Amino acid sequence: MCEASAYIIDGDNQELIMEAVDSVEPEDDGYKLINIFGEQKFIKGTIHSLSLVDHKIFLTKS
Amino acid sequence: MCEASAYIIDGDNQELIMEAVDSVEPEDDGYKLINIFGEQKFIKGTIHSLSLVDHKIFLTKS
Repeated sequence: MCEASAYIIDGDNQELIMEAVDSVEPEDDGYKLINIFGEQKFIKGTIHSLSLVDHKIFLTKS
Repeated sequence: MCEASAYIIDGDNQELIMEAVDSVEPEDDGYKLINIFGEQKFIKGTIHSLSLVDHKIFLTKS
């Protein structure tokens, strides 16, 4: 499986906010993260970067 | 390996622009895509959505 962990980056800090993320969908002024267990989390912000081989998604809050 | 294919979405159309994408990094007013072969492509636009279990990244051009 190729799900990833999602992190909020703030300066040099990375905060893990969700594991096993499958889909990331635009919603209002942010993104809705959905993991393989069906859990959802809304992040007001943008997708900063991806490192898929490392299974990482980085977002920044707005 | 968990690389993905990157698509530009334009209405109902999806155009495949790069396969085996590993990393997506912010650059200027867009994103630089880098695949596992070291090839790079710059897209002026934003990340629209992700479907990682399907190995798909969707971007929209600005």
